Amino acid sequence: QGNSADGQSKSASCAACHGANGKATNSIYPNLAGQNAEYLALSLHAYKKGGRSGGQAGVMQAFTASLSDQDISDLAAYYASLAPLK
Amino acid sequence: QGNSADGQSKSASCAACHGANGKATNSIYPNLAGQNAEYLALSLHAYKKGGRSGGQAGVMQAFTASLSDQDISDLAAYYASLAPLK
Repeated sequence: QGNSADGQSKSASCAACHGANGKATNSIYPNLAGQNAEYLALSLHAYKKGGRSGGQAGVMQAFTASLSDQDISDLAAYYASLAPLK
Repeated sequence: QGNSADGQSKSASCAACHGANGKATNSIYPNLAGQNAEYLALSLHAYKKGGRSGGQAGVMQAFTASLSDQDISDLAAYYASLAPLK
């Protein structure tokens, strides 16, 4: 089970691309605010295992390499908790 | 350039999992409403080329196999145009 507050404290390096409020700073990156926590966790695990290539997959694989399962659950819970922005 | 109205007419098979309004019917699928069009197109091309594995990648690869570049741009424009839902 992810802890959203812990996720926020772990999200500093994510904010550069995904925005402090989960709205991406560039439209080639996904907005994360209000996304489904389970899907977010699945995606982070996929990047970590090298299951995604193309686009920014290389960058994401580098960022996720050091994340524990709990880190992933916390980050997923945090971004899912944010109100989606238009 | 994607055409959102054309995208809507091509989105029937997407709605089963991603919802008629772009809010996924299951939390292991991503919500698409209000996502960045460029990111959506990158993702669809990645699935089509087999650049993603794990989770529902196999299903997505099957769905995207028959999509043209214009179809992908139209679908991306359509889902990006929808108001994100909490």
